[in-house]
Amino acid sequence: MADKQDLIRFGIMGCAEIASKVSRAILLSPNATLVAVASRSIDKARQFADRNKLPENVRLYGSYGELLDDLSVDAVYMPLPTTLHLKWAVMAAQKGKHLLLEKPTALDVKVLDEMLDSFQRNGLQFMDGSMWYHHPRTAKMQELLSNSHLFGRVKAIHSSSSYHPPPHFLENDVRVKPELDALGALGDAGWYCIGAILWSMNQKLPTTVTALPNTIRNSAGVILTCSASMLWDEEETVATFFCSFLAHETMSLAVCASNGTLNVDDFIIPYEETAAGFSYTSGAMFVDLHIGWNVKPQHVRVETKLPQEAVMIQEFSGLVKGVKYLGARPDTRWAETSRCTQLVMDAVRNSIDDGYKAIKI
Amino acid sequence: MADKQDLIRFGIMGCAEIASKVSRAILLSPNATLVAVASRSIDKARQFADRNKLPENVRLYGSYGELLDDLSVDAVYMPLPTTLHLKWAVMAAQKGKHLLLEKPTALDVKVLDEMLDSFQRNGLQFMDGSMWYHHPRTAKMQELLSNSHLFGRVKAIHSSSSYHPPPHFLENDVRVKPELDALGALGDAGWYCIGAILWSMNQKLPTTVTALPNTIRNSAGVILTCSASMLWDEEETVATFFCSFLAHETMSLAVCASNGTLNVDDFIIPYEETAAGFSYTSGAMFVDLHIGWNVKPQHVRVETKLPQEAVMIQEFSGLVKGVKYLGARPDTRWAETSRCTQLVMDAVRNSIDDGYKAIKI
Repeated sequence: MADKQDLIRFGIMGCAEIASKVSRAILLSPNATLVAVASRSIDKARQFADRNKLPENVRLYGSYGELLDDLSVDAVYMPLPTTLHLKWAVMAAQKGKHLLLEKPTALDVKVLDEMLDSFQRNGLQFMDGSMWYHHPRTAKMQELLSNSHLFGRVKAIHSSSSYHPPPHFLENDVRVKPELDALGALGDAGWYCIGAILWSMNQKLPTTVTALPNTIRNSAGVILTCSASMLWDEEETVATFFCSFLAHETMSLAVCASNGTLNVDDFIIPYEETAAGFSYTSGAMFVDLHIGWNVKPQHVRVETKLPQEAVMIQEFSGLVKGVKYLGARPDTRWAETSRCTQLVMDAVRNSIDDGYKAIKI
Repeated sequence: MADKQDLIRFGIMGCAEIASKVSRAILLSPNATLVAVASRSIDKARQFADRNKLPENVRLYGSYGELLDDLSVDAVYMPLPTTLHLKWAVMAAQKGKHLLLEKPTALDVKVLDEMLDSFQRNGLQFMDGSMWYHHPRTAKMQELLSNSHLFGRVKAIHSSSSYHPPPHFLENDVRVKPELDALGALGDAGWYCIGAILWSMNQKLPTTVTALPNTIRNSAGVILTCSASMLWDEEETVATFFCSFLAHETMSLAVCASNGTLNVDDFIIPYEETAAGFSYTSGAMFVDLHIGWNVKPQHVRVETKLPQEAVMIQEFSGLVKGVKYLGARPDTRWAETSRCTQLVMDAVRNSIDDGYKAIKI
C-alpha cells in the first residue's frame, strides 16, 4: 500500500458519463486519490458527486479554472468535448498539472502537437484515456504477437468498433455535434480501431491511408459510419477497419501474421471486469484430405485484480509519481502513441474529405 | 437407403489433390456412387485409384474424352485447372453429363456464361464445388441471420481466407501458374471470401467493388495476396476481404448487422469433421458504468452426420435425380450463386488491373 502522502491527487474536469467510470477507477487505484471535481456549475459538480457517492472531502468547483488553481491537484482527468481540449489542456499545463486526456485527443495533429508541446515544455506527464492498452490481457497479447515463432510478420489486420445508441444519443450527444466532437464515430469508435491496428504494428505508421466510400454523416455533417484501409509498403501489410454509431456492438481485432492468427472480440471493454480472453492459432495446417485442421484456436484468459481503467490510473500515477518525487522525466511513449493514432485519424478524415483518395503519411 | 439403381453415378475428371476428398465424399453420400475416374494417362488414374483405395469396379480411363463417352456416367466432378474448364465443361454438357465443377468456375464471367448456357440448353444440373454452403452449420447461420429481431440489416462484413503453403507449392502448384489457374489466390482463397460476403447479403451484388492496393504477384504475374472492398449503396453496407497464399491459415467471416454480430473462424473447412461452430451476439449493450457487456457471445455447435463435401454430393445428386427420374428442371440457384461470385471476382481483378479504381457492377 502506498503511503497516503505519496498518492497522486486527481481533479476531474468535466462531468461526462465516462467520468463516473474514471472517478471509480481513481478511487480503486492504490496510488491515486480523488481530491476535486469541476463542472460548468457547482450544481452539476454536486450532482456528479452525489450520483457517484464520492467521498465528502472531494472539493467541488463550479468552473474549470478554479480546479486548475487548486494547488493540491497533481493531475487532471479531462473528459471534455474534443473542441475544448486545446484551451483547457494548455491551461492545465501552464498550471503545472499532469494530464489524462479523454480521446479523441484533438481535432487534428496540429492541435495535438500544440498541447503536447505545452506538457513537454513544462516537464509534465501526458496520456490519453484509451483504457484497453492497460489491461493485462493486452500485455499478454503483445507478448505472444512479438514471438516470431508463434506469429511471424503481420500480414493483415481488421478491426471493428461500433455501437447502436438510442435515438436521443443520435440527436443530442456531444459526439454527434459538429461544434463539440466534430469527428463523430471516427473520433470515438474509430480511434480504437486505429489504435489497435497501430498497436499490432508496434506504432509503425502506414505508408498510405485510404477511406472506403461508405461514410454516413448526420444532417450536421458529423460522421456516423466510416471505414478505411491502410497499407505498409515495406512490410506488404494491409489493415482495414469499420466504425459506426449505426451498427451492433463490436470491439474486434483480428491479426493475421505469417505463422499465426490472433482474435479478440471485446478489446475495448471486456465482456466482464475481472478477466478477459482472446484466442490465437499458430502453425495451423490441414490434416490429410483437408477434412480438418491440425490445431484448433487456443483460448487464453487473463485475470485482472483491478479493472483496466484503474490499471490505467495506476500506471499514469506511477509515471506522475516518478516526475513529482523521483526527478524522472515524463514518459513520452504515451504521447507518441496518441500522436500516431491522431495522424492516421487525420489521414482518414482527409481521405474522406478528398473524395476517398489515398493519403500518404 | 436409396435403391442401388437410383444412385447417381459419378465420374471424376482429373486427379487433383482435392479429388481424393471428393471421391471419399461420393462414396459416403447415400444417393451417389463412383463409377469412373479419368486422368491424362491410365497410370495416373490407376495410381489415384490405388492411393484412395477405390472399389475395384470403378472404371479407369487414360483420357477425359473416354470418360465423357461412358454412358453409365450421370454426372462429372471436374477438378481441372481453371483454364481447362470451358473446353471440358461444354463437352460434358454436350455428352449429357451433369456437372459439379471445382472453383474458381472460370477466368471470367463471359466464359462462365458460355458454360452455363450449355448446361441450361441441355437441361443439365450445374453446381460449383464450394463445400461450405452445404454444411448444416451454414443453414443454421442463415436461419439466425435472417431473423430480423436477432440481427436486422447487415452493415459491415469482413472475410479472410489465407494459407501459407510450403515453398514447392509457391513454385510448382497449378494455382500459381498463369496458363493454368491465372487467378491465383484471388481465384482459390478469395473465391470463398467473395462467396461468404455475397451469402451474407443474400446474393445481392454490390454497387461498387474496389481492390485495395496491396496486391502481391509472383514473377509470372499470378496474384499471391490481394484485398478488396465492396459497397452496397442502397443498404449502406460495406464489406472487405483479404486473401493470400502468404499468410497463416484463416477462414473467417464476421457479419455486423444493426442488432447483432456473427463470427465464424473456420467457415471453409471446419476444424473438425463431425461438428462445426460459430458465435453470435445480439442486443448487446454496456452494463452501468460501461464496465462490461449485458450479454456475451452465444456459441452454437452444429453436428453433421456426413462431412460437408458428402452433403454437397448428396444435395447435387438429389437435384440430378430429380432431373433424371422425375422430370424436374435443373435448379439454377447454384449457377446463379457461382455467377454472382464470378462477377465480383472479375470486378476485383479489373480494379487491380485498372490501378485500384472503383468498378461499378
